[in-house]
Amino acid sequence: MTDRTFGRALNVRDDFMPAPTEQPVRMTTFEEPFIDPATSTEEIFRATYLVLRDHGYAGVSIQRIADRTSLSKSTIYYHFDDKYDLLMQFSEELLTWYIDQLVVDHEGDARASLDRLLDLLLLGETADGVCFESVFAPGYVATIMEMRAQAVRNPEMREYVSRTDAMIRNHFEALLEAGMDDGSIREIDSETVASMLFLLFEGALLLRSCEDDVEWLTAVRKPVDSYLDR
Amino acid sequence: MTDRTFGRALNVRDDFMPAPTEQPVRMTTFEEPFIDPATSTEEIFRATYLVLRDHGYAGVSIQRIADRTSLSKSTIYYHFDDKYDLLMQFSEELLTWYIDQLVVDHEGDARASLDRLLDLLLLGETADGVCFESVFAPGYVATIMEMRAQAVRNPEMREYVSRTDAMIRNHFEALLEAGMDDGSIREIDSETVASMLFLLFEGALLLRSCEDDVEWLTAVRKPVDSYLDR
Repeated sequence: MTDRTFGRALNVRDDFMPAPTEQPVRMTTFEEPFIDPATSTEEIFRATYLVLRDHGYAGVSIQRIADRTSLSKSTIYYHFDDKYDLLMQFSEELLTWYIDQLVVDHEGDARASLDRLLDLLLLGETADGVCFESVFAPGYVATIMEMRAQAVRNPEMREYVSRTDAMIRNHFEALLEAGMDDGSIREIDSETVASMLFLLFEGALLLRSCEDDVEWLTAVRKPVDSYLDR
Repeated sequence: MTDRTFGRALNVRDDFMPAPTEQPVRMTTFEEPFIDPATSTEEIFRATYLVLRDHGYAGVSIQRIADRTSLSKSTIYYHFDDKYDLLMQFSEELLTWYIDQLVVDHEGDARASLDRLLDLLLLGETADGVCFESVFAPGYVATIMEMRAQAVRNPEMREYVSRTDAMIRNHFEALLEAGMDDGSIREIDSETVASMLFLLFEGALLLRSCEDDVEWLTAVRKPVDSYLDR
């Protein structure tokens, strides 16, 4: 496993609090993940990201990934058991990266962080102009879907999917609790609402990626507020 | 196209009203789809269902389907352009069948029909004992996921997915409107709530199929009621 895990985002509730900044900067662009790899593992993740982007899930092979790094296939096999191990670790790492970019490394209270996520998924754009398309690469979303489809029958993939989903639900729950603490979210049953938000989030991620007309998704943004409003 | 289409379920609002029955029978079992095929097309659909159940999406081939019918490959190609055409039509037909079994051919008001769907997806079982697992075959759900994953990049699949999803959303909307008419559902914005229900429904279908522990899904059942309760 790499040393940056979900644990960081999940356990440290203070991460959700606004960091004191001299000069608050509104983020209007979204960096590509692993764009400046510092380790072999990050270099492999960067290459995986590019192969997924260009060739889709079915086009992923260790050879193709190696071709986009300075590393040999055997070096990749030194870090990862096989293609699936790599894809699972990549997927987990990318998710952590998303959470950091979207929520943790951002000013505002917990509700503001949650609003960013909901705006991005349901409206397709955050208030400060980050678009869904610039955040979620099609290859990555397709990979999530393929993994879920495999998990229907494959116990190992099923265990991975269950674990990752629980992490995201816990993240939502921690965010809701931080919001109740900082007064930006009304008193709610955080576990129930986290489950509901996760379903909406997952559904929106899926449908926004595989449908042409997703204008209907924006309607769902408003009723969600009624669960959260103070 | 086969002659039973979504149109039937979508346009005929009266279908949602309880049919007068002398002796209401509570349905506690769930028939397998296409178990008694009456036409070549239905025989092909039955075989497709069995191949998906036993081999998954990746194992579907026209040859394998033909092997489980009394028909030749060329007869199958007479009815369907290719494997994907067959899978799309199968998927649409199966969805209609589900809707009929779960909602249309059932006593009770519109809210009762909606409750059946929500209970099945969120609780895993309807009040009269029909289980999620006995309704949604794993191969079928995996097929939906694979198709969605393909739709991320394939315009034809994307168009199909968009069309099918719009049909289901319209179905939810018609059901909500029938509920407002028969007094079983409070006055709501049916389009908004239909979109939200569809997201929850789709998310639950997906996650219930690819996760081990889905107990957390049951928590979402209660807040949904608050949108519908009179």
